[in-house]
Amino acid sequence: MTLNIKVYKDLMGANDEWAGRIKQLVASKHIRMYNLIGAPGCGKTALLESLCKKLPDTHKIVVLEGDVETTRDAERIASLGIKASQLLTGGACHLEAKLVYHALVDILDDKTEIVFVENVGNLVCPAEFDIGETAKIAVLSVTEGEDKPLKYPLLFHVAKAVVVTKCDLLPYLDFNLQLCEKYINQVHHGLPVFKVSAKNGTGLEELVSWLLQSKT
Amino acid sequence: MTLNIKVYKDLMGANDEWAGRIKQLVASKHIRMYNLIGAPGCGKTALLESLCKKLPDTHKIVVLEGDVETTRDAERIASLGIKASQLLTGGACHLEAKLVYHALVDILDDKTEIVFVENVGNLVCPAEFDIGETAKIAVLSVTEGEDKPLKYPLLFHVAKAVVVTKCDLLPYLDFNLQLCEKYINQVHHGLPVFKVSAKNGTGLEELVSWLLQSKT
Repeated sequence: MTLNIKVYKDLMGANDEWAGRIKQLVASKHIRMYNLIGAPGCGKTALLESLCKKLPDTHKIVVLEGDVETTRDAERIASLGIKASQLLTGGACHLEAKLVYHALVDILDDKTEIVFVENVGNLVCPAEFDIGETAKIAVLSVTEGEDKPLKYPLLFHVAKAVVVTKCDLLPYLDFNLQLCEKYINQVHHGLPVFKVSAKNGTGLEELVSWLLQSKT
Repeated sequence: MTLNIKVYKDLMGANDEWAGRIKQLVASKHIRMYNLIGAPGCGKTALLESLCKKLPDTHKIVVLEGDVETTRDAERIASLGIKASQLLTGGACHLEAKLVYHALVDILDDKTEIVFVENVGNLVCPAEFDIGETAKIAVLSVTEGEDKPLKYPLLFHVAKAVVVTKCDLLPYLDFNLQLCEKYINQVHHGLPVFKVSAKNGTGLEELVSWLLQSKT
């Protein structure tokens, strides 16, 4: 199968101004836009693959994949029949709003209701840059240790939800889920936490309901 | 046990100049200095704990722990009886040489032969900032997926070795180690790859030999 992936790169500009334009754009179209932020290899793309399969009406979803290099992630999503573009940062460790805006304008159509943006794998800088999203979602895998909310507090502070991924691996790890939830709550009291496995489907229903019910 | 951990923060300056000073300092004392770079939760601290237990003469080792927040990692190392300081970046996603220099000057003594620096968990920016190290070591856990060398090529390009961690989890994952090694080799031909488990000790002997034999 040949996948026709658009690639965007190296667009920088006053971030807040471009984030404001995105906010207007998605509000005017009643689109929900989720900015997924997590460490490299925490399972963001696998989560998106499983969400895309689980969500009704895949023609209403578009995905923007942020990476330093390669179009691998956009290809994974596009191969499911979902509209996807690849955003390459040319070395930068986070997505900025100007790049996202230009990709959005091209990919949105009248059917779009949900936009997922997968940010560059990094727990620090992506949390500092608004891209006009409805919500930032922190993604944390159970293989990473319980203390990440304490060590990278800004992300957990600005996020509207946490998705704890790879829960199928819990039996093989010393990861203490309860302690991790305690730390999350310590940084951001009352933040919803979804415990999922993209591999066996655990917890995806609850996350899908939350995504569909969030205010635009 | 009360651990007396020194904390350093927010020292910025012309990076290359400070990196040059570190290079001179460690060369004059015949110290090997390793800069460990990997994603959050890839097991850098656990690797250091197991290396500190495995290396002969623990009084010859010092550890500098880089993080955005918390002194947890320096406390973990210090509780093993190893000299450790905590370097806090105050929000920055990587260590810079000025901060490292000041911490080094305070912690080195006449017995020091090996310095481990654990950089902030991040595969992008730490690779761009020299800190006068003998070698950067890329740390990649088997839970992260095979494609990280392709998606974060700079780190694998500048590293002098790769440590693949958490190999005890391989039976429970779809991770293809051979493919990962192919990708590493594609980005940096001939780079040594050590496959280890801090949990069960696999592969640590080979890594320790390499660390002790590397040129200062």
